[in-house]
Amino acid sequence: MTAMYHLRDVGIGIDATGTRPESDSMGSIAVPAEHYWGAQTQRSLVHFSIGRDIMPIELCRAYGIVKKAAAQVNLADNRLPNWKAAAIIQAADEVSSGLLDSEFPLFVWQTGSGTQTNMNVNEVIANRAIQLLGGQIGSKIPVHPNDDVNMGQSSNDSFPTVMHVVTLLEIEKTLLPQIEALIACIRTKAEGWRDVIKMGRTHLQDAVPLTVGQEWSGWAQQLDNALDALRSARAGLAELAAGGTAVGTGLNAPKGFGKAIAEHIAVLTGLPFVTAPNKFAALGGLDAMVRASAGLRGLAVALLKIANDMRWLGSGPRCGLAELNLPENEPGSSIMPGKVNPTQCEALIMIATQVLGNDATVAFAGAQGNFELNVMRPVIAANVLHSIRILADGCRSFLQFSVEGTTLNEQKIKHYVDVSVMLVTALSPVIGYDKASAIAHRAMEKDETLREAALVSGVSADVFDQNVDPKNMVGEGLAGA
Amino acid sequence: MTAMYHLRDVGIGIDATGTRPESDSMGSIAVPAEHYWGAQTQRSLVHFSIGRDIMPIELCRAYGIVKKAAAQVNLADNRLPNWKAAAIIQAADEVSSGLLDSEFPLFVWQTGSGTQTNMNVNEVIANRAIQLLGGQIGSKIPVHPNDDVNMGQSSNDSFPTVMHVVTLLEIEKTLLPQIEALIACIRTKAEGWRDVIKMGRTHLQDAVPLTVGQEWSGWAQQLDNALDALRSARAGLAELAAGGTAVGTGLNAPKGFGKAIAEHIAVLTGLPFVTAPNKFAALGGLDAMVRASAGLRGLAVALLKIANDMRWLGSGPRCGLAELNLPENEPGSSIMPGKVNPTQCEALIMIATQVLGNDATVAFAGAQGNFELNVMRPVIAANVLHSIRILADGCRSFLQFSVEGTTLNEQKIKHYVDVSVMLVTALSPVIGYDKASAIAHRAMEKDETLREAALVSGVSADVFDQNVDPKNMVGEGLAGA
Amino acid sequence: MTAMYHLRDVGIGIDATGTRPESDSMGSIAVPAEHYWGAQTQRSLVHFSIGRDIMPIELCRAYGIVKKAAAQVNLADNRLPNWKAAAIIQAADEVSSGLLDSEFPLFVWQTGSGTQTNMNVNEVIANRAIQLLGGQIGSKIPVHPNDDVNMGQSSNDSFPTVMHVVTLLEIEKTLLPQIEALIACIRTKAEGWRDVIKMGRTHLQDAVPLTVGQEWSGWAQQLDNALDALRSARAGLAELAAGGTAVGTGLNAPKGFGKAIAEHIAVLTGLPFVTAPNKFAALGGLDAMVRASAGLRGLAVALLKIANDMRWLGSGPRCGLAELNLPENEPGSSIMPGKVNPTQCEALIMIATQVLGNDATVAFAGAQGNFELNVMRPVIAANVLHSIRILADGCRSFLQFSVEGTTLNEQKIKHYVDVSVMLVTALSPVIGYDKASAIAHRAMEKDETLREAALVSGVSADVFDQNVDPKNMVGEGLAGA
Amino acid sequence: MTAMYHLRDVGIGIDATGTRPESDSMGSIAVPAEHYWGAQTQRSLVHFSIGRDIMPIELCRAYGIVKKAAAQVNLADNRLPNWKAAAIIQAADEVSSGLLDSEFPLFVWQTGSGTQTNMNVNEVIANRAIQLLGGQIGSKIPVHPNDDVNMGQSSNDSFPTVMHVVTLLEIEKTLLPQIEALIACIRTKAEGWRDVIKMGRTHLQDAVPLTVGQEWSGWAQQLDNALDALRSARAGLAELAAGGTAVGTGLNAPKGFGKAIAEHIAVLTGLPFVTAPNKFAALGGLDAMVRASAGLRGLAVALLKIANDMRWLGSGPRCGLAELNLPENEPGSSIMPGKVNPTQCEALIMIATQVLGNDATVAFAGAQGNFELNVMRPVIAANVLHSIRILADGCRSFLQFSVEGTTLNEQKIKHYVDVSVMLVTALSPVIGYDKASAIAHRAMEKDETLREAALVSGVSADVFDQNVDPKNMVGEGLAGA
Repeated sequence: MTAMYHLRDVGIGIDATGTRPESDSMGSIAVPAEHYWGAQTQRSLVHFSIGRDIMPIELCRAYGIVKKAAAQVNLADNRLPNWKAAAIIQAADEVSSGLLDSEFPLFVWQTGSGTQTNMNVNEVIANRAIQLLGGQIGSKIPVHPNDDVNMGQSSNDSFPTVMHVVTLLEIEKTLLPQIEALIACIRTKAEGWRDVIKMGRTHLQDAVPLTVGQEWSGWAQQLDNALDALRSARAGLAELAAGGTAVGTGLNAPKGFGKAIAEHIAVLTGLPFVTAPNKFAALGGLDAMVRASAGLRGLAVALLKIANDMRWLGSGPRCGLAELNLPENEPGSSIMPGKVNPTQCEALIMIATQVLGNDATVAFAGAQGNFELNVMRPVIAANVLHSIRILADGCRSFLQFSVEGTTLNEQKIKHYVDVSVMLVTALSPVIGYDKASAIAHRAMEKDETLREAALVSGVSADVFDQNVDPKNMVGEGLAGA
Repeated sequence: MTAMYHLRDVGIGIDATGTRPESDSMGSIAVPAEHYWGAQTQRSLVHFSIGRDIMPIELCRAYGIVKKAAAQVNLADNRLPNWKAAAIIQAADEVSSGLLDSEFPLFVWQTGSGTQTNMNVNEVIANRAIQLLGGQIGSKIPVHPNDDVNMGQSSNDSFPTVMHVVTLLEIEKTLLPQIEALIACIRTKAEGWRDVIKMGRTHLQDAVPLTVGQEWSGWAQQLDNALDALRSARAGLAELAAGGTAVGTGLNAPKGFGKAIAEHIAVLTGLPFVTAPNKFAALGGLDAMVRASAGLRGLAVALLKIANDMRWLGSGPRCGLAELNLPENEPGSSIMPGKVNPTQCEALIMIATQVLGNDATVAFAGAQGNFELNVMRPVIAANVLHSIRILADGCRSFLQFSVEGTTLNEQKIKHYVDVSVMLVTALSPVIGYDKASAIAHRAMEKDETLREAALVSGVSADVFDQNVDPKNMVGEGLAGA
Repeated sequence: MTAMYHLRDVGIGIDATGTRPESDSMGSIAVPAEHYWGAQTQRSLVHFSIGRDIMPIELCRAYGIVKKAAAQVNLADNRLPNWKAAAIIQAADEVSSGLLDSEFPLFVWQTGSGTQTNMNVNEVIANRAIQLLGGQIGSKIPVHPNDDVNMGQSSNDSFPTVMHVVTLLEIEKTLLPQIEALIACIRTKAEGWRDVIKMGRTHLQDAVPLTVGQEWSGWAQQLDNALDALRSARAGLAELAAGGTAVGTGLNAPKGFGKAIAEHIAVLTGLPFVTAPNKFAALGGLDAMVRASAGLRGLAVALLKIANDMRWLGSGPRCGLAELNLPENEPGSSIMPGKVNPTQCEALIMIATQVLGNDATVAFAGAQGNFELNVMRPVIAANVLHSIRILADGCRSFLQFSVEGTTLNEQKIKHYVDVSVMLVTALSPVIGYDKASAIAHRAMEKDETLREAALVSGVSADVFDQNVDPKNMVGEGLAGA
Repeated sequence: MTAMYHLRDVGIGIDATGTRPESDSMGSIAVPAEHYWGAQTQRSLVHFSIGRDIMPIELCRAYGIVKKAAAQVNLADNRLPNWKAAAIIQAADEVSSGLLDSEFPLFVWQTGSGTQTNMNVNEVIANRAIQLLGGQIGSKIPVHPNDDVNMGQSSNDSFPTVMHVVTLLEIEKTLLPQIEALIACIRTKAEGWRDVIKMGRTHLQDAVPLTVGQEWSGWAQQLDNALDALRSARAGLAELAAGGTAVGTGLNAPKGFGKAIAEHIAVLTGLPFVTAPNKFAALGGLDAMVRASAGLRGLAVALLKIANDMRWLGSGPRCGLAELNLPENEPGSSIMPGKVNPTQCEALIMIATQVLGNDATVAFAGAQGNFELNVMRPVIAANVLHSIRILADGCRSFLQFSVEGTTLNEQKIKHYVDVSVMLVTALSPVIGYDKASAIAHRAMEKDETLREAALVSGVSADVFDQNVDPKNMVGEGLAGA
């Protein structure tokens, strides 16, 4: 009977209007005729029309990769005939390449296992494969969403698999390039300004000098450290639940399915995916996602500090610190003419606070597993992918429209060095902490320069000039001591 | 000169393609000719193309109300001529009624004051008003986005005003009806099951009996308590920053502007808006939003508990507690045939965790104000409105597809009452805590019924039967003691 | 037999060393002979020796009030004889007055119902009452910890009762006075500086002027708003679970017990306690505690903003904003002589972040109830009381050592007003936003004063001087527009 | 002059009463004569008497290690004479060994740099060294707290150094052994129960079978994964800020100081400490602490899931799941005789929620650095050390009093396997998903066994018995598929 089916060259799209009946174990339901999805997708649209948070399209696309890999394994195991596997694979490719994006209308707020999105993918691939094979869409013949497309899989192992796949892909392809570009730009700026001496500030109060380049090098290092943490989270994401099926035992999947599908996914993505060492942990927990979220949060924490520093150093123009000139991109005020604001910094700071809140959701949700399943998956996936997206775009925007164009107000920077009294610290090893302290207090009280106060206090001009030279106070190299 | 302008009957829409130049204080920029927005909106699209989080459309619509009210005040003050005010008011009405929804493309991740969205609204209203008056779109003549539409306002007072307006509107019109309907349904169920005796559980362990109705009445009360908290947050939201302009002093707004615009907004919305008693607090902080978010979180906390209880009580069908039959809406598993899951509960629990995370963002952001402004406004607005939306929709869905159709498994409920040993508590006042305790332990160890264990332990059958009667152990009334 | 017992005048303290046996339903256990606690307390010390977080002593003391009130009700109901009630009441008074503080050694990390602390209190009161009545400590005769001291109560209703009692007491007696004093001090400062004109800052950038008094008035208002929210949480805290006993039905408590004990507690505390309207909600949820925590968080959010503003305005002395002189309380640096830091602000900001984290714990824990009980009580109580304590002490310290002694650097404040270009805003209604904007940009580019730039740009000196006068730009009154 | 000083054999303790004057750059202040601390500690006690959160004693002890290492470096550099270094080193050893614990009274809520605690340590070591050298306590001669004990250091680099040292020490010595023991115990249990078949539960609903050992193996794996994340955080903690001094440039420290002190600390602790690659990041951020906190949170997330599973599986005894018998350690209820509760699970869950809240504080605080310093150090240190302490103790307690003694209720476990209908899944590959689904639904509706329903539905007894055998449905090995 199967001889009748072969892959045809049929373009994407269903030439029909109105509805067609689709069915699942609950019975029949009318589905918009121009769409590929089936009964369970439609049921979810009815029962879970909640909010506006559509399942991130990147996740649905990545599902194409997972379904293709599954078909490849099932084909290799002779569980799917060639012609059927070929149709499923073509449809899965269309999913992963974004050609079927309009077929994934479901919301994040659905079943906590992600089953409805898994079935959405199964149904779309099945109907598209049926179409490619000349069958009747909605008939489940010759390609059944459960028996064929979902073969060897359960939502319970398949959905955490796609969560890991899409998260690792997005980190690698969307986020890391932007962060690395930002770090590179900051490092270049740091090099350029490695010898511009400025006053340091601790507790917001005047401290001892450093160079502008050193300050910027610290920002780059903070981001580097954050990247390290994020990178260390990748190993966990690379472990895939697939093969565990319903509860982790691999029921209804052939032996070796998990290892094989991970290998296929690794080939398809170019990323080092492997099968998870313990499937019960992989289904019952989402610890690798929680850890990835912590990595994203670490990035947010560093970015928040950096953006804050930049906008404070750019504050002014006349009543602030005014050490940095941030690019002026747009009018800042609807009422105050000529006002320009550090809007890129603000956007990035808002993004960082969002990532912190997203992370709180992820951690909470990650702790709410029960027995063989954690049913907080869609909310975890959505929040992690949201964080990745806004961090990536935010860093790109921050780099392009703020960091790159930032220049120094060298006059102001020098002025602060000239007037500060904290250079007294250099005298401390010579005259002792207590005497040095008295000199600094005196300078402030009498509104004297540090040199004036020191000389009046009995420090010789020679000693002062020999020791209190900002150039000798900033150590060597961008990285500090 | 102004005599030439009068309001014409021009449908919404610009019949043009390509781009037109628009300008602001930064210069000229090309804007898509079919759109009403101007230079600052376009600039924001360039500089802030971050993520997919569009400013919630409800906020943009509510801005129509605020701009209309401003025009009404300016008209009454003779600061706007009749014909100009009329055009602004019509355009503002079109904004608030949703007819211009496509004109608000900006992202949440923009300037922290919301200036770009304020200008987006100003520009759209100005250009639409110009169109209505027969002027040339983009010319700012005879209606200027800043000088006319933004008259007497700054983003600094206008954006927190619209935040309060839209939040209060959404709480009143979107959220409260759904919560109230849910409470009503739970109360009705509680009434219906007021006499069905069941075993209580504390620490997840068997405890003493109560009725199903009592258990449900507790859920209703928790929601009522949460509503109380949310309602108490409304007074703060009703206070509007408008009139404070740039820093709170009201510069460039006429005296009385704040009071007048609040009165107009109150009339337009039917809600008790008033002018904020201190404009510096209203601009520098967003405390009423933080408080509203706490109210939403309180709701999430209660809903999480309720949805958890429901899914646990519905667990089974044969290896769980199985006291409740939750409606079966869709197949539960892509691999386990016949499985039905508490998916509405799960969706609601995910929503609740999202609301908790959103609230963390709001609190953090609310604390990050500096001096005369908190520049975390868009992220706060977006998170609060997100929480409202998903709570409202989630409760509607939970009510409609789960709570309403829930029935009792009375056989199972009765079975638990029959076998429990915790009814021994009723003997405690008669024979003392220590003896009662020994009886309960014996029953478990020997696998006896409580009655058997009690009689063996020397309690007379009379005493037992007189005291250990579940019907006498559930107190009176749905509310408990 | 009871005739033999009468209240004796026995001082607090047990004159014994080594151990004595105490027993509960699990058997006998050796207890340090010099302590009043019994078997269950001792067992908890063995099984829950976790960390260093002792149950807050205020909670244990407040338990004295609850136990006294219970004994009063039981006496009035003739369920306790006079002599026994008298002994229990005296012991309970000793608990609430702090005389038995050393008898409450248990940790927060114990049973989630707080049963062990309830039993700790029951045991201490029972043994102390036995001692007062001439009985043998540890014999449970004539006063039994469960049958007598816990009469009509369960930990399940008694512990949330004491949580509400102690939280409301601590808010009223510990926290509110400190916050109110802080507000009063800020208001006084605001009055004193109501006419000192300074430059406002929005987005950290120079904005239009306001007065120092206005800025401070905004801080006071933010705290007032936060207090409002906190006060609105009191009604929920005033509702007591007592009377619900084990699951809310009031089993083993006489009818009316809940109402009566609440009345007694109200009299004993002078606070408006009432019986909770629904006992199932009162046991299964801890919503009033979550709401109170949100109130504390609101305070933290406002304080964080205020302390941040103060330390930024005090930044310098020569490389910062330097508008405020904060008191110098201690040397600021172990290496930089003469450095003084805004340490009180920092302590308060750290406290605020702790309160935010505590609140996250409380909200999470508040959502984790199941069925008839939330077993996250000790962690909720500990976090809420911790937040109250550090907020109260932190505000007192902040007020005493920073706010009160703060003075103005009027020279610097005036300087900023003199040099700012944002006063151009006042020209905007006269010459239009776009022209005003060009003037501001020119002043910055050419390093001109605003007046110079305006005159060069064609504004007449008269127009400039008439409009650009800071005194006319700050509106009227401390509260702003 | 220094010839007069030599190390004497003087026991710890100051034989004096009343007060003695101590001084710092602010002047003189009276200090309790029996204590070693000096003026700055005393000042902090006056100005920062906030709450009850004493700086964790482990941190103060670890400071002894840091100060000893500094003295060793200064000695090697000939910056300290032998006799002076020897005295400082002995005093520092006394600090690190806990002999001077009573000398560290300061609160967490102090200066955000930790300067006051650094000075507390400097003062105690200085005075103790003075005592050892025969000098006059309080004279700063011949050992000065700043010039000698703090030589080459600033609080700004020293405090983050000690934060890293104490955190890594506590993770290694306090936490990891407890977690590893818990994992080992769970693994042993898993091995013992590797073949006990039980029903799986997903969505809380009956699913397909697995073995008890498999379920437990998943818990062990989750903890292993969490440990991986925590271990990956150690590299960051091993990087020390020391050498950067006030702002990162190393001012007043000799070249090479950072590298040398890290080497000494590595030797003293046996842990792989190195100097931080960039000192500006090490002072301005606390990213390694934020990451360590995320690691602790990951552990909390896994533990919360495990403890939840255990208490649910132990729920009952007669109205719950009742698969596990948890040890009965204490009476569970003050009113319900014979009740035993999963109190160890509850304590652990409360601990986990505390760790989540602590982590929120840490992340927030970690983001609040400005310029060359993050002044949220004490709150971060306190929260991270708190989390470590309660996790370590909580796991020990959970292991000892709950996990180890847990046994199976094999009768109940088998019963669930016998009655479940979800074994139908094994038929799905044979008869298809849809038919299998119909059988499951029928069994539930008709209250039939799965076998009955299958046979009535046309499945042959042979096919049924061949496929539906739980033993064949649990895969191979503890780790699942």
